[in-house]
Amino acid sequence: MVHQPGEIDLAALKDESARARELDRAHVFHSWSAQRLIDPPTVARAHGSTVIDGEGREFLDFSSQLVNTNIGHQHPAVVQAIKDQADVLCTISPATVNAARSEAARLITERTPAGLDHVFFTNGGADANEHAIRMARLHTGRTKVLSRYRSYHGGTQTAVNVTGDPRRWENETGESGVVHFFGPFLYRSEFHATTEAEEAERALQHLRRTIELEGPATIAAIILESIPGTAGIMVPSPEYMQGVRALCDEHGIVLIADEVMAGFGRSGKWFAFEHFDIVPDLITFAKGVNSGYVPLGGVILSDAIFETFAERVYPGGLTYSGHPLACAAAVATINAMADEGMIEHAAHLGETIIGPRLRQIAENSKHVGEVRGIGAFWAIELVWDKESKEPLAPYGGGSPEVASVVAALKEHGVIPFNNYHRLHVVPPINISEEDLERGLGVFEKVLTDLDFPR
Amino acid sequence: MVHQPGEIDLAALKDESARARELDRAHVFHSWSAQRLIDPPTVARAHGSTVIDGEGREFLDFSSQLVNTNIGHQHPAVVQAIKDQADVLCTISPATVNAARSEAARLITERTPAGLDHVFFTNGGADANEHAIRMARLHTGRTKVLSRYRSYHGGTQTAVNVTGDPRRWENETGESGVVHFFGPFLYRSEFHATTEAEEAERALQHLRRTIELEGPATIAAIILESIPGTAGIMVPSPEYMQGVRALCDEHGIVLIADEVMAGFGRSGKWFAFEHFDIVPDLITFAKGVNSGYVPLGGVILSDAIFETFAERVYPGGLTYSGHPLACAAAVATINAMADEGMIEHAAHLGETIIGPRLRQIAENSKHVGEVRGIGAFWAIELVWDKESKEPLAPYGGGSPEVASVVAALKEHGVIPFNNYHRLHVVPPINISEEDLERGLGVFEKVLTDLDFPR
Ligand SMILES: Cc1ncc(COP(=O)(O)O)c(C=O)c1O
Ligand SMILES: Cc1ncc(COP(=O)(O)O)c(C=O)c1O
Repeated sequence: MVHQPGEIDLAALKDESARARELDRAHVFHSWSAQRLIDPPTVARAHGSTVIDGEGREFLDFSSQLVNTNIGHQHPAVVQAIKDQADVLCTISPATVNAARSEAARLITERTPAGLDHVFFTNGGADANEHAIRMARLHTGRTKVLSRYRSYHGGTQTAVNVTGDPRRWENETGESGVVHFFGPFLYRSEFHATTEAEEAERALQHLRRTIELEGPATIAAIILESIPGTAGIMVPSPEYMQGVRALCDEHGIVLIADEVMAGFGRSGKWFAFEHFDIVPDLITFAKGVNSGYVPLGGVILSDAIFETFAERVYPGGLTYSGHPLACAAAVATINAMADEGMIEHAAHLGETIIGPRLRQIAENSKHVGEVRGIGAFWAIELVWDKESKEPLAPYGGGSPEVASVVAALKEHGVIPFNNYHRLHVVPPINISEEDLERGLGVFEKVLTDLDFPR
Repeated sequence: MVHQPGEIDLAALKDESARARELDRAHVFHSWSAQRLIDPPTVARAHGSTVIDGEGREFLDFSSQLVNTNIGHQHPAVVQAIKDQADVLCTISPATVNAARSEAARLITERTPAGLDHVFFTNGGADANEHAIRMARLHTGRTKVLSRYRSYHGGTQTAVNVTGDPRRWENETGESGVVHFFGPFLYRSEFHATTEAEEAERALQHLRRTIELEGPATIAAIILESIPGTAGIMVPSPEYMQGVRALCDEHGIVLIADEVMAGFGRSGKWFAFEHFDIVPDLITFAKGVNSGYVPLGGVILSDAIFETFAERVYPGGLTYSGHPLACAAAVATINAMADEGMIEHAAHLGETIIGPRLRQIAENSKHVGEVRGIGAFWAIELVWDKESKEPLAPYGGGSPEVASVVAALKEHGVIPFNNYHRLHVVPPINISEEDLERGLGVFEKVLTDLDFPR
């Protein structure tokens, strides 16, 4: 399923890239970075699961960028849809009806459980979560929001404050009403559990107590990534998620499923919550919905929450809500995913290739403590040793050891997703088995022989 | 400068629009609305200053949508740039160097004063302001942010909380650290002033006292629209803005100029703050930068604030920061604005056509209390009578009278921007004199004869 690039003029590519690099260092301020301590790689071209750097070197993209190019780079149907929409109408105010927006909303809600029938479009994942939390607060008349430690929900004020990772720490100024709790994570259990069942049960007890002690009537929402992504791809059990759903029902709390990273095929289902047989009240999405070809995110609302704003003004909006170009890209992406069987493909890859091969790597590597995941959504825990489970880089930071692993993978032509001490295997969900095997071979080669002295 | 549309098949257009409408009502949740009480118009096509509805009817777009299509609809150079970039590379992670992003940053910073040389790209205006406020807080080590009543800064949590309009009211939950003050607005003076000079002086005294009473050492930033847009296009005097700059300098407060609506030619300059001979510390932008053809916003940083994050991690980011497709559209837009002399054109239209004609309308209409503006950025105050200045619709609301005026303008083929009791004349900045005269003729016809009984 890899799409072929046009002819590349290498000399021109290098010139363009050198110029881009110079201007970048002079004028571009980068996300999550100390500006003078970074040296970002140039990406000049990409196709399918391959990216091409400023020197014309090819890499297998096992990161899907920020886990968003679920259908790979430059899918021809989506590129064509963007160009066709550009010819018709690039932009229009949200206060209108537009065909691309309508069709995107139809295709999205066609894939949600009954009773989740309306979409509010945003530009990305962070603002999707901002709006979902607002909807929950106004729907319940309550303020507080509960979220997991080990989670990421975005970079704007409320989104980063519900986030449970170190990126929140410097951003707590001026925000209130957020409480974090621990979710199930057997490998580093907070609850001294030894089985998945025990972990789920104890994590639920912990959440129940947290709700009681915070005051059920003060809590507007619980926001959860259906499968926590950046924080480590800890696939929860159906029992846990059903327990959370039951607690929400018991206390009139809105359950927000953040499907920004886990949704649109990443886990081998359209939405990751489908693995757990639950129905959230609000679903947030972005990334995979159109693979990020044009910025797009959104919130899918339950009928009950829709009704809250049926005759009362919803006090939120944005200039580019339901942007035609972004929606046209979503329409083409969803149709391509369906037509090409990508969702099933992702499930199949996880079960038959990624899972088995990563487990084998874990067995043979001193420094791989655990591998876990589902679909095209896998994490590798790099540790000092399997007994202590001590992370190979500290929480919130890096280490020379992890940096050397990442560098070795790149040297062998594979770009991984790296977060602290973890590597994630998150290629496009339509990666060919051949490319996947080739990339996993590189992981195997690099990880198997690792032996860091203390 | 109006660009020609392709042939339109009217029967197909109507079918497409009917279907879009049905799906919209079934599946799309709209910004700032009570979902069952709205009936959004369908926009099927657009070109230049013209939009075409689902029935094939043409309208002059005197709203520029949400005051974002500064270069009009479907500018061929920008459409082509989007299609060309789509062929090369639609999306890439912010943690890379990309040619379109680099060039957009160069073209933007080429137009800023010396010492404002770096751009952090976001998806829109709200997140630009969120990030600017974060930068100011971390740069100063302070929390509080001061902003004007009668302002709009976006729909996410912090952006809507610095907003000084009724859209904030339901969104204050969970936010702290924002203080509002009154800005200069002679027509509805808070300070009992009778001249612009007196208004500016007294507004500055009020701001100085607010700063003293809030505690200068607690204030991270003052955020101001260089010219407040949605809230009423109150062009401040250079003296006022220079006074604000001096107060910020005196107290180490970061001055954030929100140029989301006022920037990129709207006021007849690249940036509206240029009218006042001041240099802000942070500039936020969106809308006009690429006319919204692809979602894009950003923050331009002073060197001093850049230095704060030169060796310290900036704790903020987003998946689509510096999106190639959005940046390619910005490059083409800025080049088109420059090549076609649009900035000068906007200044010229304001001075020689819009200003004079609106002032004449005001003289001849019982219900026009004031007209004011600059460039292609004008407001009309609809009032019950010129003496009481009582707004024709209450603050934060609508009225049958204003609705009838808006309906009459549309009946005559012109779409205005309406906020409460005001109409804004904010066409594309490259509108032809002919289209402009035609549209203003409609305003004249509709407004001159107005006579609402009390
Ligand atoms: C689970 C989750 N939620 C929200 C976001 C924020 O999305 P964005 O970067 O588009 O604002 C991300 C981004 O990585 C994410 O992974
Ligand atoms: C001055 C100003 N700032 C910020 C915004 C928010 O921009 P966005 O709607 O892209 O979030 C707007 C939108 O109208 C605006 O006019």
